[in-house]
Amino acid sequence: MDKIKDLIKKLGSLNYENLYQEDFFHTWDKSQDELEAIFTVADALRELRENNISPKIFDSGLAISLFRDNSTRTRFSYASAANLLGLEIQDLDEGKSQIAHGETVKETANMISFMAEVIGIRDDMYIGKGHTYMKNVSEYLKEGYDDGVLEQKPTIVNLQCDIDHPTQSMADILHVIHEFGGVENLKGKKVAMTWAYSPSYGKPLSVPQGISALFTRFGMDVVLAHPEGYEIMPEVEEIAKENAEKYGGSFTKVNSMEEAFKDADIVYPKSWAPFAAMEERTDLYAKGDQAGIDELEKRLLEANKDHMDWTCSEELMKTTKDGKALYMHCLPADITGVSCEHGEVDDTVFDRYRVPLYKEASFKPYIIAAMIFLQKVKDPEEMLQKLLDQNKNRVSK
Amino acid sequence: MDKIKDLIKKLGSLNYENLYQEDFFHTWDKSQDELEAIFTVADALRELRENNISPKIFDSGLAISLFRDNSTRTRFSYASAANLLGLEIQDLDEGKSQIAHGETVKETANMISFMAEVIGIRDDMYIGKGHTYMKNVSEYLKEGYDDGVLEQKPTIVNLQCDIDHPTQSMADILHVIHEFGGVENLKGKKVAMTWAYSPSYGKPLSVPQGISALFTRFGMDVVLAHPEGYEIMPEVEEIAKENAEKYGGSFTKVNSMEEAFKDADIVYPKSWAPFAAMEERTDLYAKGDQAGIDELEKRLLEANKDHMDWTCSEELMKTTKDGKALYMHCLPADITGVSCEHGEVDDTVFDRYRVPLYKEASFKPYIIAAMIFLQKVKDPEEMLQKLLDQNKNRVSK
Amino acid sequence: MDKIKDLIKKLGSLNYENLYQEDFFHTWDKSQDELEAIFTVADALRELRENNISPKIFDSGLAISLFRDNSTRTRFSYASAANLLGLEIQDLDEGKSQIAHGETVKETANMISFMAEVIGIRDDMYIGKGHTYMKNVSEYLKEGYDDGVLEQKPTIVNLQCDIDHPTQSMADILHVIHEFGGVENLKGKKVAMTWAYSPSYGKPLSVPQGISALFTRFGMDVVLAHPEGYEIMPEVEEIAKENAEKYGGSFTKVNSMEEAFKDADIVYPKSWAPFAAMEERTDLYAKGDQAGIDELEKRLLEANKDHMDWTCSEELMKTTKDGKALYMHCLPADITGVSCEHGEVDDTVFDRYRVPLYKEASFKPYIIAAMIFLQKVKDPEEMLQKLLDQNKNRVSK
Repeated sequence: MDKIKDLIKKLGSLNYENLYQEDFFHTWDKSQDELEAIFTVADALRELRENNISPKIFDSGLAISLFRDNSTRTRFSYASAANLLGLEIQDLDEGKSQIAHGETVKETANMISFMAEVIGIRDDMYIGKGHTYMKNVSEYLKEGYDDGVLEQKPTIVNLQCDIDHPTQSMADILHVIHEFGGVENLKGKKVAMTWAYSPSYGKPLSVPQGISALFTRFGMDVVLAHPEGYEIMPEVEEIAKENAEKYGGSFTKVNSMEEAFKDADIVYPKSWAPFAAMEERTDLYAKGDQAGIDELEKRLLEANKDHMDWTCSEELMKTTKDGKALYMHCLPADITGVSCEHGEVDDTVFDRYRVPLYKEASFKPYIIAAMIFLQKVKDPEEMLQKLLDQNKNRVSK
Repeated sequence: MDKIKDLIKKLGSLNYENLYQEDFFHTWDKSQDELEAIFTVADALRELRENNISPKIFDSGLAISLFRDNSTRTRFSYASAANLLGLEIQDLDEGKSQIAHGETVKETANMISFMAEVIGIRDDMYIGKGHTYMKNVSEYLKEGYDDGVLEQKPTIVNLQCDIDHPTQSMADILHVIHEFGGVENLKGKKVAMTWAYSPSYGKPLSVPQGISALFTRFGMDVVLAHPEGYEIMPEVEEIAKENAEKYGGSFTKVNSMEEAFKDADIVYPKSWAPFAAMEERTDLYAKGDQAGIDELEKRLLEANKDHMDWTCSEELMKTTKDGKALYMHCLPADITGVSCEHGEVDDTVFDRYRVPLYKEASFKPYIIAAMIFLQKVKDPEEMLQKLLDQNKNRVSK
Repeated sequence: MDKIKDLIKKLGSLNYENLYQEDFFHTWDKSQDELEAIFTVADALRELRENNISPKIFDSGLAISLFRDNSTRTRFSYASAANLLGLEIQDLDEGKSQIAHGETVKETANMISFMAEVIGIRDDMYIGKGHTYMKNVSEYLKEGYDDGVLEQKPTIVNLQCDIDHPTQSMADILHVIHEFGGVENLKGKKVAMTWAYSPSYGKPLSVPQGISALFTRFGMDVVLAHPEGYEIMPEVEEIAKENAEKYGGSFTKVNSMEEAFKDADIVYPKSWAPFAAMEERTDLYAKGDQAGIDELEKRLLEANKDHMDWTCSEELMKTTKDGKALYMHCLPADITGVSCEHGEVDDTVFDRYRVPLYKEASFKPYIIAAMIFLQKVKDPEEMLQKLLDQNKNRVSK
């Protein structure tokens, strides 16, 4: 239990009260202390659970999930987190295709929230839409709360939007912190966030964007590598650059996977669609231009094929720091010879890193639980101490 | 806490023991005291929750939901109510189109109910079917309970049938009671329950029917207004007339929205389909006559267009009592210039009443929770006092 | 409460510690004492619940359900069992058609299990696939647990595979034990597990297989009857034969329903598809040969028609022991003149046995709960005693 006590003490040294009652949209909306508080609470909740101490803080209440895209991993992470804290999952299934407008969103947001504590939203399909949608829901809920319609204000957890994927990137970095033995050991480490070939099409940009914007906050040297034409959103590159300056690391862009991998401590090779093409697609969907969409898909798949050599091969892995860079992925990966003929990564590389990859994913439920905990609990240190003291078994013994 | 104590005292003055273990189908099956008991418990449960006192009475148990029509508002209200009391929602998805018959319904009703406490059913699509289905399920469950198949008898909550929509009308009247400062202030108030134009088709009659039958029980002057041919079920009109006589109000029918709105204290303008047309549609569905169904839809939409002037305009609102009648709607409304070109209500009217409309909706989870509470708890006064005394936090502090 | 104390004492006399942390695939994987332990705990959990004592042992945790075939009865039984013990159901909907492969299954199994206690799987459609799939999931979970990816190892409950349907057969035999007044009264009883005609096609073999393999373990004389060509899996027949020898009963095969029914104490007439045809179908699906599948269906339906006299008629029932054999079915049955023109059973027979049939089904939630309880609780006797002593109301009084 000493570990939990240390975590509570650490929490006490941080300035994080602004997380209370606030939504979580992007990591860059939050201060360094606030992110640290989330990592600390995530570790504390894990420690409690692994010591069979229940961290349940709700006796009732709903955790609403709104997924505009298929999801298994994030859905189960969110469900696990909500259940751990005592909330019951209730899915809002609006249908994937339906893009709701102002009045409808305002009304629905309020109608479902009379007894809701948190709303987890995944809306990553259309550039320029996902984050905007979440902001709208947030405003409507605040209005409902201020007008006395809602007794409590449900907070929003961004489970992936068009711009950021904070529960992914924060689980990723928490994994790195644990692998490297502490946040203080991240300084100067080289991270290769690189594009990789995949035979599928239109993968969201929120992962490379989220990693670029978050990993630059820990004094690391982040290298973003992709073929020409596969640019990410310029706004996010700007954030990454500013972070690098502020936190004493660097953010570099290259057009070569080899250059990025060279001596890297961490590699994150992953396919994504070009930002400009995703903007184009959004417009085509808005116009309902199916012929244009089909043509774009064909064009993009063809373009991808020019870069089949962008793959995380054994050869490339050998060029990393001591040939042993930490391989990361948000999963599922396109594995060469397993899930496809040519993919993002060699099967032997993937196999060797399976256990750390699965552990990487295991942080997500705790990151989400920590976000909810810090949004809803007025005095988190006191509450963690109380949970520790009351020592209620999660599973009866 | 004085408010809760007053509510418990009030409950003590009412005669409501017949709610225990019984289903809730129609408001007119219940006595005045029984309805008052539901309002009182709804207010008490809200008061408990808003004071962060958990009203959880179940440690386990299922609340089954069976929706034969799409629903977001009612679904979330039911889920919120069940969760507040400690029940877990389990959806029975029979498919919308499938109309189950005797043996199947009997068997399924028993098979899902071994650990179920309550079954919420929405079946409003076909005239002459919804209520009948609920009655059948009820009988089969009673039989199963009497035969020793079921340890406990799940009770039914009608979440909308072809005849009544009691959780809606009771949430509506509870809103009115709060707006007018007490049930004793309802006497003599004029209510305009009027048809309104909508570009969509086949909206259920259960709302105008439910309002006509319930609001006439509080000494109010209910005016039902609709174009010729948009009659509601004659049985329900009969109930409304009897109520008016019994409770000292009135029930009038007119064919003019203007007449209904004149000096009204409350207006409830809403589209619905003609009763006779809905009977016709039910027959066509039973025969599987798709051509007939399409022809009927076309005919009804054409007929609607003759009454586009039936809309809740600013002009009409000015003619109500002091120009300030309480505008009500079960939501979602067809708002002119927002959700459609011409609809049930002017956007400016809707905008002005948005907060009260949302508050109106906020009573539904509590009405449902109160119905379940009174169905399942043998001594509700004692239980409310016990919940108050044990003072268990809903959210840990 | 004496009954529960007796059950706890009985449990103490059994050797069942190997159930702890282990999956439940087939009844024949388990020892006689282990099956007895499950029956005993099922009875104890029922006794607790019926005395309004909560057997909740989890404060949080997920119970994942993975159904590759439609199900209402088993789904609700599993949901009821999980909820009773304190777990929240979370559905994994992979889509019925998708047959997942190695890497994907391994990854998904781990990704959903970070906070899962149990996974209930139904995969009965394809001969040679269902059980194999469950074994794979099991191995991957064990690997994840051993590698430190999973904090706890979710156990698997087979909710029906291509070979066995243990939650059904065990609920069935527990019903028989109760009907006959104790497991000691089963010796020498004649059981007719017979094929019966149904106008539908491709019903799974897991019920006749499960019954043949389980009922032969209690000294009963099991007669398996079916028309030629409707053989069950030879491996399972082998198990039934060995059981008969080991436990002092018999296992006979006949091609006459009359012979099987003659003087039977128990009859279980039920349609199923021929094993060889199901193998053929699996191959056709694997090849994606839709024409072949259609042709096979046609051929099988034609073949069925040669055996329309295989039905549980009143005449046949008269030939059973005192004309009063216990009629059993896993439900839903094809009832002549009710659910179809010619079916598995006369309507008057079914009607007369409806109450015992429903009671038969009522054991399933408790069998599932007992399996989970014994998989997850280290000292089940102590835990049952603790639950009894703490005497927490399931429904507040």
